Amino acid sequence: MADLKGFDIMSELFTEVCPDIPKSGPSKVTVVGVGMVGMACGMSVVLKGLCTDLVLVDVVQDKLQGEVMDLQHGSLFLENIKVYGDKDYSVSANSRIVIVTAGARQQPGESRLSLVQRNVNIFKHIIPQIAKYSPSAILVIVSNPVDLMTYVAWKLSNFPRNRVIGSGTNLDSARFRHLIAEKLNLSPVSVHGWIIGEHGDSSVPMWSGVNVSGKCLNSIHPRIGYPDGPEGWDKIHKQVVDGAYDVIRLKGYTNWAIGLSCAELLATILHHRHRIHPVTCFVKGRYGITDDVCLSLPCVLNCNGVNSIVNVDLTAEEEAMIKKSAMTIADVQKGLKW
Amino acid sequence: MADLKGFDIMSELFTEVCPDIPKSGPSKVTVVGVGMVGMACGMSVVLKGLCTDLVLVDVVQDKLQGEVMDLQHGSLFLENIKVYGDKDYSVSANSRIVIVTAGARQQPGESRLSLVQRNVNIFKHIIPQIAKYSPSAILVIVSNPVDLMTYVAWKLSNFPRNRVIGSGTNLDSARFRHLIAEKLNLSPVSVHGWIIGEHGDSSVPMWSGVNVSGKCLNSIHPRIGYPDGPEGWDKIHKQVVDGAYDVIRLKGYTNWAIGLSCAELLATILHHRHRIHPVTCFVKGRYGITDDVCLSLPCVLNCNGVNSIVNVDLTAEEEAMIKKSAMTIADVQKGLKW
Amino acid sequence: MADLKGFDIMSELFTEVCPDIPKSGPSKVTVVGVGMVGMACGMSVVLKGLCTDLVLVDVVQDKLQGEVMDLQHGSLFLENIKVYGDKDYSVSANSRIVIVTAGARQQPGESRLSLVQRNVNIFKHIIPQIAKYSPSAILVIVSNPVDLMTYVAWKLSNFPRNRVIGSGTNLDSARFRHLIAEKLNLSPVSVHGWIIGEHGDSSVPMWSGVNVSGKCLNSIHPRIGYPDGPEGWDKIHKQVVDGAYDVIRLKGYTNWAIGLSCAELLATILHHRHRIHPVTCFVKGRYGITDDVCLSLPCVLNCNGVNSIVNVDLTAEEEAMIKKSAMTIADVQKGLKW
Amino acid sequence: MADLKGFDIMSELFTEVCPDIPKSGPSKVTVVGVGMVGMACGMSVVLKGLCTDLVLVDVVQDKLQGEVMDLQHGSLFLENIKVYGDKDYSVSANSRIVIVTAGARQQPGESRLSLVQRNVNIFKHIIPQIAKYSPSAILVIVSNPVDLMTYVAWKLSNFPRNRVIGSGTNLDSARFRHLIAEKLNLSPVSVHGWIIGEHGDSSVPMWSGVNVSGKCLNSIHPRIGYPDGPEGWDKIHKQVVDGAYDVIRLKGYTNWAIGLSCAELLATILHHRHRIHPVTCFVKGRYGITDDVCLSLPCVLNCNGVNSIVNVDLTAEEEAMIKKSAMTIADVQKGLKW
Repeated sequence: MADLKGFDIMSELFTEVCPDIPKSGPSKVTVVGVGMVGMACGMSVVLKGLCTDLVLVDVVQDKLQGEVMDLQHGSLFLENIKVYGDKDYSVSANSRIVIVTAGARQQPGESRLSLVQRNVNIFKHIIPQIAKYSPSAILVIVSNPVDLMTYVAWKLSNFPRNRVIGSGTNLDSARFRHLIAEKLNLSPVSVHGWIIGEHGDSSVPMWSGVNVSGKCLNSIHPRIGYPDGPEGWDKIHKQVVDGAYDVIRLKGYTNWAIGLSCAELLATILHHRHRIHPVTCFVKGRYGITDDVCLSLPCVLNCNGVNSIVNVDLTAEEEAMIKKSAMTIADVQKGLKW
Repeated sequence: MADLKGFDIMSELFTEVCPDIPKSGPSKVTVVGVGMVGMACGMSVVLKGLCTDLVLVDVVQDKLQGEVMDLQHGSLFLENIKVYGDKDYSVSANSRIVIVTAGARQQPGESRLSLVQRNVNIFKHIIPQIAKYSPSAILVIVSNPVDLMTYVAWKLSNFPRNRVIGSGTNLDSARFRHLIAEKLNLSPVSVHGWIIGEHGDSSVPMWSGVNVSGKCLNSIHPRIGYPDGPEGWDKIHKQVVDGAYDVIRLKGYTNWAIGLSCAELLATILHHRHRIHPVTCFVKGRYGITDDVCLSLPCVLNCNGVNSIVNVDLTAEEEAMIKKSAMTIADVQKGLKW
Repeated sequence: MADLKGFDIMSELFTEVCPDIPKSGPSKVTVVGVGMVGMACGMSVVLKGLCTDLVLVDVVQDKLQGEVMDLQHGSLFLENIKVYGDKDYSVSANSRIVIVTAGARQQPGESRLSLVQRNVNIFKHIIPQIAKYSPSAILVIVSNPVDLMTYVAWKLSNFPRNRVIGSGTNLDSARFRHLIAEKLNLSPVSVHGWIIGEHGDSSVPMWSGVNVSGKCLNSIHPRIGYPDGPEGWDKIHKQVVDGAYDVIRLKGYTNWAIGLSCAELLATILHHRHRIHPVTCFVKGRYGITDDVCLSLPCVLNCNGVNSIVNVDLTAEEEAMIKKSAMTIADVQKGLKW
Repeated sequence: MADLKGFDIMSELFTEVCPDIPKSGPSKVTVVGVGMVGMACGMSVVLKGLCTDLVLVDVVQDKLQGEVMDLQHGSLFLENIKVYGDKDYSVSANSRIVIVTAGARQQPGESRLSLVQRNVNIFKHIIPQIAKYSPSAILVIVSNPVDLMTYVAWKLSNFPRNRVIGSGTNLDSARFRHLIAEKLNLSPVSVHGWIIGEHGDSSVPMWSGVNVSGKCLNSIHPRIGYPDGPEGWDKIHKQVVDGAYDVIRLKGYTNWAIGLSCAELLATILHHRHRIHPVTCFVKGRYGITDDVCLSLPCVLNCNGVNSIVNVDLTAEEEAMIKKSAMTIADVQKGLKW
């Protein structure tokens, strides 16, 4: 038995066969920003068992350490996913995915577009650090306005297009499917429908594709979802857009749904699933868009990030809407100080 | 095709075979209190897919509605777990489990015992409502000081002993196993050890039973974990106790670990697993305890709640500690106004 | 310490708080028939954690006992799902779902229809026993020819229509989506398409509804899937139909895919998900079908079984095909000896 | 719209952003041998979602192709895990783990040791092929007699010790815990106990470490598990040893439990969990063993395979038993023709 001095329980208890190198596991995910959104992303990712290591990075040291400790205290229930964090980005080295949630929070009533310059300044600090330590990572941008910030992250990272993704309208589409599913007393999994374009105010609902087991709702009523269509259905897109504002007004912020939405994207990427999600990607040259902008379109995701973009057909009205969004975004981008 | 007036999409789209009665599914869980702890419990429960319905109840209407909406927006990613809520307890009718997190939050530096009378007053409103609408439910009490509040909930509910459980030292034990696992570079799942007694300050670490694949650590050093034992190991129990205070100091509250801990209890109960967890139960008559008090001991849980209590052996020192906790708690209980 | 005589470890180890009644948990599933298909169903159900109790019933005692023991030996890895079995149906009492896989196995080259009278005779023994012991259960019929056997089970059970479901074209549709997904380098989850009608030879592929993120493939080529359509695509339905025969020829039987398909139906039913699956249901009065027959159509399933049938639109050609299947089946049914 | 000639649906439907290279995902698992055991391993691995690619390899082409097709037909239900196979080992290139189940099946009544030379001859073909195409893989050997075959695989592969693991007594220990759990009406997860040494006939139950929440059963009766101990408990180890023989006698082979047991090892390895399992490793120099043999001891597994071996304490009786097993195995090894 060892005495107190020189007590080496490891050699008493174990015979090493192979040193534990590298320290991190094969599936490391970093979340930048430990606010409400960042922590909801982190919790969704660990509870879905998607990674071997969850790394948290933030500038607010106390909050960061508190969140790391709190998650570590639950590690027994998380099947030994390692959780750690630091304000120094070296802790995130060799992440497979980095989720960026840092940024000023959207205020009640504030449009997403008004946040942008503040967040660009923050990204100028964050993105090069991430790219330095995880040069092969896929970036999933959540910070708002997400379409602009995805473009900014792409530029600042010098990563190829496929490795910079914005959470985009994956959440808007989930809200859309939930609202339709509620009306039809169905699981949202069995309601197929897509919202594309800008995340938020000017998003574009593709009513023409909304279907239930292949039966398009517009075969029941051609104007479903439009102001001159059946009552109630015309308000669904407005409810989708207002959804975020309503939740912010009621509880001060949104976090759970966006966290779950991100975890779903990570599941597809990390498991190389080739599933389609509407996410923010580079859209120049499509639908008459001539500016260097990012917007959401249905994309096939796999372990390389964006494998391809689905060439969905837009009506003239939808194409006009998405072009207008693109121009608005391009205008803001031109005014940005890099 | 239907016109706008009298447009009935349900009858166009579906032929009903059986009406959708009852509205709630076979595995309904209610969380009372939508603060940080309540929501962490709720998220852990839905992300682990433990229920068909998650019901939230709180007195703060706006916050409640915001949380319900935020979770509903993520329902696509939650495999159609229904989430709803109300301040009226009728919404919780026929729950299989009710988690009670309502109560004043522990302030930085505040002992758990000082919270008690405030929380008793709150429980006098809550518990009879729960018992009225879900007379067969199992109550899982999380509100602090949890040992006292479990006793109070038991008395107020008139439920049999097996159906009122406190989250107790399930979390303390998880922290204990995490800290030992960190030292040994192991998964906490492979470190076996128990903390019993009061949740928090006067909890009792059972060092004699701590083992790794059946090898007791005290066979390596008999005083491991004690002040006269090997360096570093003596501080582990203090770190467990201080853990909650540290997290509260750093981030203002604790929530993730307690949420995960609760979800683990629910997994055992709802799946009828007969797994053992250290939880708060009625302990009068054990270890020389003569008062009507609740404290944590290892319990076998199944779909009836507490199936049995494990008769763990305590050293004289451990028995003295647990008896002292019991007396302190009994003293507070005598002063309570019902 | 107890001596050998009268050694009662239970009372030494535990103090009972509540007796363990009832013995079975709240979510009991029975599989009738422990052949290759029955065991693949059972394994899929337990590995997906869908039940608290898995009960196996078969007439071949040795094989039955061997399968039960083998699964029990793995119970550590199955989170304590209880597995037991007997040839007496009383063991299945109060099941929530009974999967029926018993019946003669389809021989290489044999059409499903030729099996029927043999299997009717088997069902005359099985179904009344199931109905006697689990009068509230939902029956999921897998035995072939599944559409006929679902009708037979419905008649023999006297259960309401919503509680007798055939696994039907849920598997054919999965094969269909897999083959299309392979061609498109996509996850089958992101390929939407349905096969309805008879399970097997005369199944009806609904090419008009096949879509990827709402974009119908027939918008790319109107004759896709048809003999006069693009090369390769016209063979997909034949590959679906031949798939089962190919697997039987190569390995002697099919089991994994049908087992996984059944588990998916159970997930929807037990979790009250309101998801849509193409399953065998009673279709008289639809699409000009005037006989008392069962065929697959997309159905909304929940904890009551079939909640409703989706009114999908068929082309004249598709309607003709499904009517022909219905007549063939009706003819066989008329010849059955009950 | 494209005409039939030159119809290129991919370019109609998608705009490629990044080519799909490499074809296989980041977590590829190969199973060699598609008999009952190999397929049970494969099904357990895919149903637990442990890999991105499951590759099957066997010499029997028809059976192999049938199994691959059957699993592919279920890919919709397997979240797009890619399943493919070939008799050429190039298909397994860059696997992270290769499970070897190939070998002659244990006949009713046959001891594991008698199988060995036949299986060595098989391994001389298999192992170099695996090592050639997946030089960084971890080998998990399941073929019996597993302790000998693990040694053989280690020698033939020239892999470091940490990367050649035998499934060993992980299954015996599961059977042991199940049988004790049945007696105590507990989940086997809450019964801690270990069987070490040879998989099968001469395995060594470590009764001294068997405990329930840290309470050793031998504190209730010091001779529990021994012939002079309490009735019933002395037969448990015999039931463990006979378990495999019983199942073989009853159903002709064992497969489910061993498949589940292997999947558990893979979960620990692939998720870098540092969990302890009793598995076959190289034990020369321990417990007075002087021969070059492999036997099961509790090992810490992570993404490197065996991280370390736990130095469990054996009684003189247990040490004698394990030494005797080692000598028996060494004797057989000396007679092997390489």
